[in-house]
Order: sequence, then C-alpha cells, then structure tokens
Amino acid sequence: MVKAFNFFRLILVLSIGLFFLSIIMAVQGSSTEVSRHNLMPVPAKISFEQGKLPVNSEFRIVLTGYQEPRLKRAARRLIQRLSIQTGIYLLYEVEKDASKAILEINCQGPGEKIQSIKEDESYTIEVNSSRAYLSATTPVGVLRGIETFLQLVTLDSEGFHIPAVKIQDKPRFPWRGLLIDVCRHWMPAEVIKRNLDGMAMCKLNVLHWHLSEDQGFRVECKSFPKLHEMGSDGNYFTQHQVREILDYARDLGIRVVPEFDMPGHTTSWLVGYPELASAPGPYQIQRFWGVFDPCMDPTREKVYTFLDTFLEEIARLFPDDYFHIGGDEVNGKHWNKNPDIVAFKREHGMEDDHDLQAYFNKRIQAILSNHGKKMVGWDEIFHPDLPKDIVVQSWRGQDSLAKVAAEGYSGILSHGYYLDHILSASRHYQVDPLDRDAAKLNAEQKARILGGEACMWAEFVTPETIDSRIWPRAVAFAERMWSPQNVKCIKDMYRRLEKADRNLEWLGITHRSNYPKMLERLVGNHPIDSLKVLADIVEPVKFYTRPHTHEYTQMTPLNRLVDAVRPESNKARQFRNMVDEMLADTPNYMTNKEIIREWLTEWRGNNSILRPILEESFLLNEVIPLSEDVAALAEAGLQALDYLGSNQRPPQSWLNGISSLLDRPEKPEYELEIMIIPAIRKLIEAALSLLVSHNFEDSDAHGWGVEYP
Amino acid sequence: MVKAFNFFRLILVLSIGLFFLSIIMAVQGSSTEVSRHNLMPVPAKISFEQGKLPVNSEFRIVLTGYQEPRLKRAARRLIQRLSIQTGIYLLYEVEKDASKAILEINCQGPGEKIQSIKEDESYTIEVNSSRAYLSATTPVGVLRGIETFLQLVTLDSEGFHIPAVKIQDKPRFPWRGLLIDVCRHWMPAEVIKRNLDGMAMCKLNVLHWHLSEDQGFRVECKSFPKLHEMGSDGNYFTQHQVREILDYARDLGIRVVPEFDMPGHTTSWLVGYPELASAPGPYQIQRFWGVFDPCMDPTREKVYTFLDTFLEEIARLFPDDYFHIGGDEVNGKHWNKNPDIVAFKREHGMEDDHDLQAYFNKRIQAILSNHGKKMVGWDEIFHPDLPKDIVVQSWRGQDSLAKVAAEGYSGILSHGYYLDHILSASRHYQVDPLDRDAAKLNAEQKARILGGEACMWAEFVTPETIDSRIWPRAVAFAERMWSPQNVKCIKDMYRRLEKADRNLEWLGITHRSNYPKMLERLVGNHPIDSLKVLADIVEPVKFYTRPHTHEYTQMTPLNRLVDAVRPESNKARQFRNMVDEMLADTPNYMTNKEIIREWLTEWRGNNSILRPILEESFLLNEVIPLSEDVAALAEAGLQALDYLGSNQRPPQSWLNGISSLLDRPEKPEYELEIMIIPAIRKLIEAALSLLVSHNFEDSDAHGWGVEYP
Repeated sequence: MVKAFNFFRLILVLSIGLFFLSIIMAVQGSSTEVSRHNLMPVPAKISFEQGKLPVNSEFRIVLTGYQEPRLKRAARRLIQRLSIQTGIYLLYEVEKDASKAILEINCQGPGEKIQSIKEDESYTIEVNSSRAYLSATTPVGVLRGIETFLQLVTLDSEGFHIPAVKIQDKPRFPWRGLLIDVCRHWMPAEVIKRNLDGMAMCKLNVLHWHLSEDQGFRVECKSFPKLHEMGSDGNYFTQHQVREILDYARDLGIRVVPEFDMPGHTTSWLVGYPELASAPGPYQIQRFWGVFDPCMDPTREKVYTFLDTFLEEIARLFPDDYFHIGGDEVNGKHWNKNPDIVAFKREHGMEDDHDLQAYFNKRIQAILSNHGKKMVGWDEIFHPDLPKDIVVQSWRGQDSLAKVAAEGYSGILSHGYYLDHILSASRHYQVDPLDRDAAKLNAEQKARILGGEACMWAEFVTPETIDSRIWPRAVAFAERMWSPQNVKCIKDMYRRLEKADRNLEWLGITHRSNYPKMLERLVGNHPIDSLKVLADIVEPVKFYTRPHTHEYTQMTPLNRLVDAVRPESNKARQFRNMVDEMLADTPNYMTNKEIIREWLTEWRGNNSILRPILEESFLLNEVIPLSEDVAALAEAGLQALDYLGSNQRPPQSWLNGISSLLDRPEKPEYELEIMIIPAIRKLIEAALSLLVSHNFEDSDAHGWGVEYP
Repeated sequence: MVKAFNFFRLILVLSIGLFFLSIIMAVQGSSTEVSRHNLMPVPAKISFEQGKLPVNSEFRIVLTGYQEPRLKRAARRLIQRLSIQTGIYLLYEVEKDASKAILEINCQGPGEKIQSIKEDESYTIEVNSSRAYLSATTPVGVLRGIETFLQLVTLDSEGFHIPAVKIQDKPRFPWRGLLIDVCRHWMPAEVIKRNLDGMAMCKLNVLHWHLSEDQGFRVECKSFPKLHEMGSDGNYFTQHQVREILDYARDLGIRVVPEFDMPGHTTSWLVGYPELASAPGPYQIQRFWGVFDPCMDPTREKVYTFLDTFLEEIARLFPDDYFHIGGDEVNGKHWNKNPDIVAFKREHGMEDDHDLQAYFNKRIQAILSNHGKKMVGWDEIFHPDLPKDIVVQSWRGQDSLAKVAAEGYSGILSHGYYLDHILSASRHYQVDPLDRDAAKLNAEQKARILGGEACMWAEFVTPETIDSRIWPRAVAFAERMWSPQNVKCIKDMYRRLEKADRNLEWLGITHRSNYPKMLERLVGNHPIDSLKVLADIVEPVKFYTRPHTHEYTQMTPLNRLVDAVRPESNKARQFRNMVDEMLADTPNYMTNKEIIREWLTEWRGNNSILRPILEESFLLNEVIPLSEDVAALAEAGLQALDYLGSNQRPPQSWLNGISSLLDRPEKPEYELEIMIIPAIRKLIEAALSLLVSHNFEDSDAHGWGVEYP
C-alpha cells in the first residue's frame, strides 16, 4: 500500500516535472512544437509572460543611446508600417521625452561604416503591459529587432496588442543572401527596392546582385560605355540608381554584393568589346537560355588592363568588401578553337581549361585585392592557389562546401536554395548548410561556412512574376539561415509562413495581388472563378523542365497559366493533410470526409464551367486536357471515397481506367503539375487495399504495391 | 463635403426626385443596344468591320506629322501598357520607318501651350487587318485615342487582336473633372499620380485639386510659410512636387485646377495667420468634420494685401486659366459677432452675409484677374456683379445651373456626382448636366454648361481606401461626360465597367487589391473566406449617415468593415438581376432558381463559420448582428423560394417574423447596408402574392402592397 502510494507520487512528480520541462523546451523553440507566435524567423530565445501591451493611437517611439539618421528613418518606417498594418492613424514623430513613449529603442553604438559579415545583428526585446524596450549593440541590430517587433503585433477581441515577452535574438549565420538575376529578364529599380523590403522583413542581409550575363549587361559603365549601351537594350541601372539602391539597402541593414560573371557568361560584354573575346566577333546579345561558347580570352594582357580599369570603377561604386566574379560554366570551346590560347596553355604547362580558368581567377583576384575587394565565386573557382579570404558559393552542395571549409576557405551554400526550381518551401526549409559532410567538420571549420543564398535566376520570371517566385518561399529559407538549427517543425513553419505571406503584401510585394490580375488577363472578358479553381491546385513544372519543353527566348511572353499559378499550392497541401488525417482514422475514415468530398465534387464539376472559357482564350487552349484530367481525377477520388465508405471491393475495370490517368506526362505542353494527385493516389491505394487483401497478385500486376508502398 | 450637413435634406429630396425621373428616362432611352465592345466611355461614332489586326511581339509604333516629346512619351507608355495588358514582351522603341509600324499615330499640330477648355480632343481610329491608324488634331486628341486603342485589344482563341473598326470620337463636354480632397485626410503625391492615370484612362480632363480646408493647408507657400508649416502637420506638397504632378498631368492631357477655399473653410490658414480671421485667435487645425465658424475678415484691407501676394505666387505655380476659390458654407457667425464687420456691412448698405461675401468675391476676382486667372466657385459665389467669365460649380443641381447659364455665366455640375455619398455607378450615370431645367435652355445657353466634376471628399477615405471610393464608379461618370447623351443602357454600362475595373488595376490603382488586404487585417490569423462572403453583399451606408452615427475625427482609424467593403456590391446586383429574371418567369419560376438557392444557402450557412472569427476580432465584434441578420434573411429567402415552388400559402406567422427582419435600423452601429434585401423582399412579395390573391386585406395590413408596388 505504502509503496504503491509512493510510486504513484513519484510518477506524479515526474510528470509534473516533465510538464514544466516541456514548457521550457517549447519556450526555447524546440524542434517539433507548434509555437504560439507568428514570428518568422523564430528568434534564438523567446519567453512569453503574463499581460499585453495595447497598440493604439497613443503609440509613440523614443530613440535613446547612440543616434544616427538611419535610426530615425527606421523609427519613421516602423510607425508608418504599424499604421498600415493596423489601419490606425499614427503620428510620424519620434518622441523626445522617453517617459511618453510606448516603445523605447536603445542603440548602444555605431555599427560598421561599411556593413560586413562581422556586423553585430543581435538585439533584445522586452515587452510588459505598459512599455516595450528594444535594445541592440548596433543600428543593424535595431533594424532586426524592429522587424520582430512588428510581427509581434496581434489582433484580438479587445484590440491590437503586443504580448508581454522577452526575446534575445541573434542570427545563426552571418551571410544570409538572396541572389536576384536582373540580366536574363530586366528588373527595374522598383523591383529591387521592394524585394529589399521583403528581405529585411525576414532578416536576410545580402543582396547578391547578378548584373551581367550573356543576355544583358545591366550597369552604366563610364570607362567602357559600350558595355551598357550595346549590351542592355537600354535596360540598365544608371550609377545614380545604383547608389540609390545601395543607400536603400544600407538603411535596411542589407549588404549588396555585385556579381559580374567572368570569363564565361560574357556575351553581352563582347557586343561592344569583341576584342576581349576568345573567338572573333561580331557578337550579339544572347536571346536564348543555356550555357554558351563566348568567353573572355585569359591569355591576353589587354583583357586584364581592361578589367583593371573596369573593376576600379565598379569597386568604387559598390562599397561592400566582397565582389562576385561568377566564374561558372565555362565550356572552353572557344579556347580550344583558338590556336593562340592552345599555345599559351601548352607554354604554361596547363593541363586543362580548369587550369587556364584558375590562372584567370588568380589574375582577377590580384586586381580585386588591389582595389580592396575580396573575391567570391561559384564552386569552379576553388583552387589552392587562391588566398584564404575568398568565398566559395556552392551550387554543388554541403559535401563540396565541407571540402572548402576543411581546406581553410570560407563558403556559402546555394545548393538546395534555387527558387527558380519551383520547389516547396518545406523542401528549401529542410536543407541545412551544416548537414551531410559539413556536419562532420570541427567547430572552427564549421564557422567558415558563413551561410547561404537563395537564388532567383531570371529565365522564367519578369517584373510581373518575380515577386511570386521569391515570396513567400524565401522566408522559409531565411528562417533556416537565422533561427537555431533545431527550429524545423514544418507544420508550424507553414502556419507562420501564411502570416509572413500576408505581411509581405503590406510591404508592397506583389506576389499575391498579381495572381488575380494574371488570371484576368487569361480569361479575357470572363469571370476568373472557375480558372482559379483549377489554378489553385496546379504548380509549374519543377527544376529544368520548362526549357526542355518549349524553346524559350528572352522575348517569349511569360503570360500563360504556368506563369500565373503559385509555385506552391496551399490548397493542394491542405487537401493532402486532410486526406492523411482521414486515412489515419481507420477503420471508418470519417475525419474530414465531408469536406474532402466537397472539394472533389467542386473539382469534378469545374471543367464544364471552365471549358468554354478555355476554348475562347488562345492562352488557355493548352490547358483543356489539364482541366479534363483534374475532373477525371476528382471523379476517381470520389469513387475511391465511396469504396472506402462502403467497404466494397473496387472492380478490376475501375483500376485499369485510373491507372493511365495517374501516369502523368513528364513534360506536358502546359508545363503544369496537378498537385492533388498524391492525395488522390492515397485514396485510391486505400480503396485498393480492400481489394489487395483479397487479391494481392492482381493489384501487384499493376505495380501498385511497388510504386506506392 | 461641401454642402455637408446644412443641405442634407435638400440633396436627399432632390436625389430621390432625380432618381425616379431618371428611371423613367432610362426606360425611355432603351433604344441603346448592348454594344459588342468594351470601350468606356463609348465613342461618338463607331463602326466595326470585317477582320482583325493581330497584336503580338511584332507590334511597333510610328509617330508621323507634328512631333513633340509629350507624344513620344505617350507612345512609350502605350507600348509599356500594351505589354502589361497582354504579357507580351514589346520593344519600347518608336519606329522611324512608317512601313514597319503596325500602328501609325498621326498628330496634325501642336495643341494649346496651356491646355484650356477649348483644346481639341477629337481623334479618329481606323483599324484593318494589317494596320492601325490613329489621327488627331492635337497631342491631347492623340492621348484620348491611345486610351481607346488600348481598350480595343481583345483576347480570343487565336491570340490578342484589335477588331477592324472605324472610330470618330470627340467629347460631349469640355470640362470633365474629378475633385480630390487632400485636406480632410492627407493624400501623398503617389495617390494623386495613380488617380491621374485612372482619369486619363476614362478621358477625364480636369483634376480639381482641393488644397486647403479647415483640416489642412496642403501646399508649400514661400510668401507665407506658416500656412504649410503650421497648417498641415507636415503633410503638404512641396512646390517641386506640385510641378512634378502638373507635368505628369499635362503628359496625360489633364488640366489641374487648384482650389483654395475662402473666406470660409480656412481654419488651417488661421493657425499661422490669425490676423486674417474675423474673430480673435489662436486657432488650431480642425480635427472634426462639418461646417465651422472661423473665416477670413472681408472688411480688412490687410486681408486683400495678403491674398494678393499669396495668389500671385500660387497663380504662377499653377498654369491653368482657372482658379477655384471655393466660396461655400460661410455660416457668418464670426462676422456677426465682430462689431467692426457689422459696422462695415451697415456702412456699405449690405443686407446680409451673402452681400458681404459677394463683396469679398468681387475683390478676389479682381486680384485673380490681375494675375491672369478666371475664377471658379461653388453655387454661393454666383452674383450678377461678377464678370461673365467666371465658372459656377453646382452642388445644387441642374436647375441652379440652368439659371447660371441663362444669365450668361458658365457652369459645371457636381450635384449627383458626389462619390463620397457611396451610391451606385448607375445612380451617377443617370445624372445628366442637361436634364431638368437645363434641358429647356437654348443651344447657346446649353453650351455654357461646360460639363461636370465627380467629387471625392476625404472625410472617410485614406490613401489606402480612396482608390476604391473613386474607382470604378468614376468611369461611369466619365462616360456621362464624354459619350453622346443617348448612351445610357445601364446593363451595358455595367458590363463594360467590369472590364474598365480590371484595366484600372493594370494602371496601378489599388481599388481591387486593397480589398483582400483590408479583410486580412480584420480577421487577424484567420482565413478571410467567410468574411468575404459577408463583405461581398454589404455596402457602406449612404449620403451623410456615417458622421451622424459615430463621432469621427481626422484621427479616427478607418480600418473597419465599412471601410473595407466596396461602395457597390456586384454580387448583390447580380443576385437582384437573377431574382428579377426568375420572378419574370411565371408561373413556375424556374429561371436561375438553383443558383439563387445555392447563394442563399451559402449566406445562411456562413454565419456559423464566421461567428468565431467575428468574436475574436475587436474590429469585427460590431458586425456580429449583421452576420446573423444575413443568415436570417437568407433563410427567409429560402423559405420564400419553397413557397413559390410549392405554390403553397405562407402562414401569417411567417410574415410576422420576417417583417421585423426587413425593417433595417436607419443608422446601424456597423454603418453597413445589406444589399441583398431588395431581392429577398421581392421573393417574399412574390411568395406573399400567393397569399394576397386569397387574402388581400391581411397582407395590406402589413403595408406590403403600398411599400413595394
């Protein structure tokens, strides 16, 4: 009796202990818990307390400690954004009297004159029911804290408020970048500025500005004006605009690393300056996508003289420590066709093109160093001849990066972060720079992995669509870069991403508002509702499928359904989750059944409404079979649902019909994927399992068991 | 809100009268066919021919005839907009070789140096299957033609094209304005610019820029800097910004008429310069809405010295021939309290305040004339002492305007065009400047009625919501101003308005995109779908109900459902039309029955989904009863539908219950009207008529027969 009682008490104590332990863990941001806030990226440390601070028209800010104009502008932006976010009229004045302020922003000192990877970005926030206090070592820390502060503002039945909270935050990686390619398709200054706003919101801190390519040279060059005059179709940034953007970025605590890709990817340079080339000109701006032969001649001294003058000018224009030379995808064809170059390689004992490129890189690195810059380049530039202060950007992956770090070089990861691959947010979210071989490095080596960059290559985006291809998925990437490694609950990420997605629209990002507009263009005079039903459950094809399906050029209109639809279908994800929940609810499969039936019924019926609209629009003709397939798939899903409900065997004939439906073309003309297929597949499998238990071999003959275990 | 409160009843009575009159007219004018194009405003003459001109990436423009930079910029904008509209990549180059161009734009000569009401705005367009030709006497005519040209672009199963067509077009009225009040709520330059784009799209040609008010003085004044420094909270246009906006407007063929309201509505002037006032200061910027006592002292010479200097500066800044002095709503209280002013009136034999104001106006008119300006003012300024070149803007209506014209003065109509009354597009559309007494004028007198202005008074709009209050309704007004008087088919107007509505978003007007954003703000973390179901069928209360429901100031947040919803519910209009069609389909009422049932069912069920969301948002708490009433109304509609189908008598108890539901509160807290009520009423009446035929007196006791004939 006594023992039993003690044992019971022990369990009670243990469970109470566990309970509190789990609360503490949740507060510290444990891996699987759903958090109670909307913050993205999740801060390093956060603990909620009792109480809340009302946000109303009395809201005022005071700036204490170190003062600079950038901080005042930041405070004004905070007021403006808070006003937009809440719809409350707020005065744009920064209080001088600390006692009157609701939010005190205390900055301890100036940051770096030129923001570097060493800039202190940490901050703390404390909110109680009467006041909020944001403190940081540097203005950049303040900027990071302001973004968190704005995300804390919540609406409830009493008003807008900020919950009482203590936050101590700092980034996991110092290099958290977004590459924007403005060459394949031209992106004017307003696109860059609004995307800088988006970056700041999720605490990204490097704009990797891809400024020259085969398809365009995008900066005014005073030393060699034919670069922008002949290489850009008139679509380039003036140096005045560049400076404006740099100021804009600095105000947001964002470094700007320019990339001028060389010696390959340089067709647009060679239009005005064919004397730099490895093969005789004349050259024309490249209109197609891919890897092309034209490249600079690394054996000619005049090329280095040219580049010295060029880099001197550009190095002055861009203040950042780093300069990106690209250095990727040189196919060497023009080198090997040029007898002088072949002779040069022989004379210098170079075994292959990689040696020649290494020679070029070393020369460029010396010039850059001379102009005060450290060099960045893609995996290909990595070579033991180069000094340790270069940074290697890896499209190859963590194993490649681990090698770089092991040899004492720094690196950043872009493998797994290509936004133009049109993968899900969760796919990017699960890629960690310190996974795979990088996980085995020692602490010192790991510290050389500086972070990563999401890449927005611009073959298939225009100013109209680029926002929707970057956002909101880049926010998931940004959280991977900023938050502790153990923050990785995908469900919670998606919950918070939805909120971030909305906030981005308040900033002026057009990723949501361009969707109905583009659908309206496609339907002509018709209503968009039925097209939206279809568009909501499809996604563009992935990876490099598009250039292998149609022949695209820079001039090809990107105005089809594939361009309008979202990179990730929220509706399909919801459907998948609902089906999973239903199938877990054995044996009766009741959970979500009605809503699943409702959705499937809508999809089945939609084609008959949509069909005449598709027929009347030359932009939509191509998706007539897509719409039909969705209807047929929905019908199959409904039938599977019926079988599941009745516990009745589906006949063999049913299976035969559906089988072909699920075998999707690999490169459909319309370049879209139907995202409800996996869930419908699961429904069919579940219905099939009724059959399988009776007649396994028959079903196996259709490959079900193997294909979808 | 010029005639805000004093004349509310008058306006209401006039509007009701006008409404019935125009219903009669609309029926009479049913000769106008539903057109086969989307043009808005409808051109004076249009005839379609066989064939179509493809619009694709080969599209090029050539400018022939008279050349000026404004034309080149217009051509570039055309290319840019065509590119956005179609999603086709188009070169921004203007061809030099006419034979290579698809569109030839021929301008015959320069227009006026300062665009006036006499500017020739006519143009012709001819399109055949290989070429398009746009010709105009002046660059402004070219601008008008370009807008028509862009609206001709159509999507079909073969591509984008322009139908073969011949158009000869010119405006009906030379003064087609939009008043934007930037004083009650501050509207920054970007708001003005995007609304100028919207105006140009529908061929409006006057921005009436309401720049001073009790609540704000909005232009930098170099002679008297305390005007903007102390009268604006820092929210004013610098002269540099004003010039930018004037250039922008000129590029669009839009005149800009500045209004500085005087001698009343001048509190914001008096904050910095109390010596101008009729009563001792100090003064503060007015934060409330209404008509206030402060006004200038017309008896002091110093006031005229001040205004002479002021008007000299402002007259130089604004090049237009006309200058608007407001001149409305002087309540005279401060005049009559001031013994000096009372004495002055006595000495000069003035009978009342109107005489004193006429004296003031005459003095101001002389100063303006001296600075090269003609005077514009509201009805109140009309006085036989003034020269014939003044323009009277009438909030009173066509009868008042007819008097003005009969006496040899010019006038423009604004009565019936107050966008802040939140009436339907069709209401404004049916108001014609040459109706009522104006219809009886002779041709010469009629010609003095120069046109009209839609008015966007800014008590209840912010930069976030103003676009949705102006657009698309102002396009219906614009058509009334431009198109022949017999263009008045409402059904066709709405069809084309939907297309104009979409086009406006391409221009950057935010009236559509701000809707989901504002709903998202209201719901916090929830999805907006169920709120949208409710929001789609309600409208803000009309006329001056809002200021009589709550006490509003300049600082009151405009972030509630009443601010987010559209001024006109398209969904409710569709529902009304469907119900009308059904009820015309006697005796079985089958037309649209299923979709009507579907919609009613959705509305009935929506409350249970929406309720928890409304409870969790302090901004939505107030609409809980609204949502419940919609559910109950939908239920009543469904029951009526059942009675209609069964041909069964509704019991008396049913009627009693519904009666109270249809009696809506006149000033509901939530300031919204349920727009499906009229259609539901009709359903109930129809169900009731089954009863009536058997028991007429019983139903008459409920007033049905009388109230809804």
